[in-house]
Amino acid sequence: MADAAIRFGIIGCAEIARKVSRAITLAPNAKLAAVGSRSHEKAARFAAENNFPSDAKTYGSYEAVLDDPNVDAVYVPLPTSLHVRWAVLAAQKKKHVLLEKPVALNAVEFDAIVEACESNGVQFMDGTMWMHNPRTAKMKEFLSDKQRFGQLKSMQTIFTFAADPDFLKNDIRIKPDLDAHGALGDAGWYCIRSILWAVDYELPKTVIALHGAVLNDAGVILSCGASLHWDDGKVATFHCSFFSHLTMDTTAIGTKGTLHLHDFVVPFQEKEASFSAGTECGFNELVSGWEPPPSKHTVTTDLPQEALMVKEFSSLVETIKVKGSKPEKKWPTISRKTQLVLDAVKASIEKGFEPVEVGN
Amino acid sequence: MADAAIRFGIIGCAEIARKVSRAITLAPNAKLAAVGSRSHEKAARFAAENNFPSDAKTYGSYEAVLDDPNVDAVYVPLPTSLHVRWAVLAAQKKKHVLLEKPVALNAVEFDAIVEACESNGVQFMDGTMWMHNPRTAKMKEFLSDKQRFGQLKSMQTIFTFAADPDFLKNDIRIKPDLDAHGALGDAGWYCIRSILWAVDYELPKTVIALHGAVLNDAGVILSCGASLHWDDGKVATFHCSFFSHLTMDTTAIGTKGTLHLHDFVVPFQEKEASFSAGTECGFNELVSGWEPPPSKHTVTTDLPQEALMVKEFSSLVETIKVKGSKPEKKWPTISRKTQLVLDAVKASIEKGFEPVEVGN
Repeated sequence: MADAAIRFGIIGCAEIARKVSRAITLAPNAKLAAVGSRSHEKAARFAAENNFPSDAKTYGSYEAVLDDPNVDAVYVPLPTSLHVRWAVLAAQKKKHVLLEKPVALNAVEFDAIVEACESNGVQFMDGTMWMHNPRTAKMKEFLSDKQRFGQLKSMQTIFTFAADPDFLKNDIRIKPDLDAHGALGDAGWYCIRSILWAVDYELPKTVIALHGAVLNDAGVILSCGASLHWDDGKVATFHCSFFSHLTMDTTAIGTKGTLHLHDFVVPFQEKEASFSAGTECGFNELVSGWEPPPSKHTVTTDLPQEALMVKEFSSLVETIKVKGSKPEKKWPTISRKTQLVLDAVKASIEKGFEPVEVGN
Repeated sequence: MADAAIRFGIIGCAEIARKVSRAITLAPNAKLAAVGSRSHEKAARFAAENNFPSDAKTYGSYEAVLDDPNVDAVYVPLPTSLHVRWAVLAAQKKKHVLLEKPVALNAVEFDAIVEACESNGVQFMDGTMWMHNPRTAKMKEFLSDKQRFGQLKSMQTIFTFAADPDFLKNDIRIKPDLDAHGALGDAGWYCIRSILWAVDYELPKTVIALHGAVLNDAGVILSCGASLHWDDGKVATFHCSFFSHLTMDTTAIGTKGTLHLHDFVVPFQEKEASFSAGTECGFNELVSGWEPPPSKHTVTTDLPQEALMVKEFSSLVETIKVKGSKPEKKWPTISRKTQLVLDAVKASIEKGFEPVEVGN
C-alpha cells in the first residue's frame, strides 16, 4: 500500500463535478482515478480541463467506471431522477457513493440506495458541502451551549438565486424528468438541511408549504417556502427561489442567543468564514442602543469546504477498506431525514398548502 | 415668537416616555412643557428624573395636560386600549398627537382617531422611531434602485425578545384589557411596518398566520408569525415573540439585490447604523466564493432616531401652527395600513390560520 489515497471515479461531467474534481485533487487522502460520460470524448475533455492525473482513466460510459477495479468510490453528479439507478448499481459494484443532492426523487427511492449501500458494505454520503466547513462545527458549539444560546425556539433559512432565462428554459433543474424538484431540490434542500442540523436532526412533526409557490408548466417548483413545526413549539420557516437575487441566510434564535449568517451554503471566501452570535443581548438604559451587541466570529480553513467533504468521506472509506469496519450511518441518516422533509413540503404544495405529517 | 419650539405634554409616565422625553429635549424644535399622570406625585417625580425644564408643568391627571394652553402637542404612551379615548380627546382639545404604537385596538378605532385629528386640523404621527433614522432613507434608496435592487420578490422580518417571568405575568403587553395585542402589537407592529415600508405601502391582498402561534390564558398573543401575499407574487413573512432572544431582522430580496440588517428597530449604536447590501452577487469560477460579496453601508447621525422623529413631527406641527397649513396625511395613512395588516393577522389566528383578506 504505497498510496492509501481513495481513488475516485466520477460519473457524469456536470458543472458541479468540476468543483468536486478540484476538491478531490485538494483532499490529501483522495485522488482522481477515472471519469465516465456517455461520450468518451466528453470524458477525455473533462479530465484534461480538470487536472486529472495522467494515469486517470476516461470512459465513454458510466458502467465502465463502476467496473474499473482501480476505482474505490464514485462521485455521482447526475440528475436526481437518475440517482436511484446509478447509486444502487455503484453500491452493487462495491463502490462507495458520494451522491449529489437532492439524494433521490423521494424517500422510498432513497431507501433503495441506502439498502444497496448497507448490503454491500459501502459508505454513503451526500454532497452537502457546507456541513464540512469548520465554521459549521463552531456554530454548532454555539447552538449547543445552553448558556450562550439556550433552547432553540425558531429558525429562518433562505436560499435564492436569480436564474437567467436560459436556465429557466433549459437547465436540468427545471425539467420534470431530470432534477424534478426544481428550486426545492436544488436550494430548498440546503435550507431544510440547515434547519435539521440546528435541531440535532429531530424531524418536525408537521410541514406546511407557504401559499404562493410558483411552478412551471411542467409542474416543477421554481419558488416556494414552508413552515416546519415540532411538538415542543419550535417553528422554522424557509424560502427558496430561482427568481430572487443570490441570498443564503441561516438565522437561529434561542432563548438566550441568536445566530446569523448570510453565506451558509457557499462562504463568501474559501479560506475563512464568519457568523454573528448574540448572547443575552439587551439595551442601554434608554433603549437607544444594544448592550452588548452581537459579535462576529471568524473561522479559517486551509482547505475549502468541498475538499473537507471529500477528505471526510475518504477517511470513512479508508477505515472500511483497511480495517473492514462498517460504514458510518450518520450520513445516510441525515440525507434521509432531509429527503423526508423535502417530500412533505412537496406533498403540502400538491395538497394546496395543507399541513402534512412528516414520514419516518 | 421668541421661541418657536413645539411645546410637548406627555400623558402617562410609561417606561418608553423616558426615552421620548430625552428625544424631545434633544430635538432642536421641541421642548418639554408638561407631564400628567393619574397621580401628581408620579408626574412630578417623572419630570424631575427626566430633565424637564423648571417651567414645565406637572399634573395629577391627563385631562389637565390637554387643557393646558401652553401645550401644542401631546405624546401618548398609554396602553393601546386607551388610545382611542385619549387621542380623540387630545385632538378635540386641538393638541397635535404623537401616539405610541400599536395605534389602536383595530382600524375602526383608529379611524375615529384620524377623523378627530382631521376635523380638528392637528397632526398625527405614531411612535415608530426607526422610520426616522437616516439609515432608513439610505436603505430606501437602495430598494428603489432598479439597477442595484431590481424588483422586490420577498421579505422576512423578525422581532423577538425574551421576556422575563415578571413581564409574562404582569406587563401591560400581556393584559387583554391594556395593550391587548401582545407580541403582535408590540414587536409584530414593527415587522409589519418594515414590510409595508419596503413595498411602498402597497397593502398585501391576503395574510395567513403561521401555525404555532402561542397565546396566554387570557388570549393575548405571546408569539406568532404570518405570511403576506400580494397579487404580483411578492411574499413576505414575519415572526414576533416574547420567548426568544433579542433579534431585529429585516431581509429584503429583489431580483438584483439583497438587503440585510439585524437591528432595524433599535440600532446597535445611537449615532451610526449599518446595513448590508448585495447587488448582482455571484460566484467565482468554481463556486467556492462570492464575486462580489455584499457590502456594508454605514450611516451616521447627530441625533438618535427618536429625536429625529420628534423633530420631524414638530416641524409638521410648526408648519400648521405658523402657516395654517393642513396636517401631513402620510403619517396617519401609514399607521392605518400597518393596523389593517395587524388586524388581518389577528383575524387569521382567530380563524385557525385561515387566509384573511386585508381590509381597506
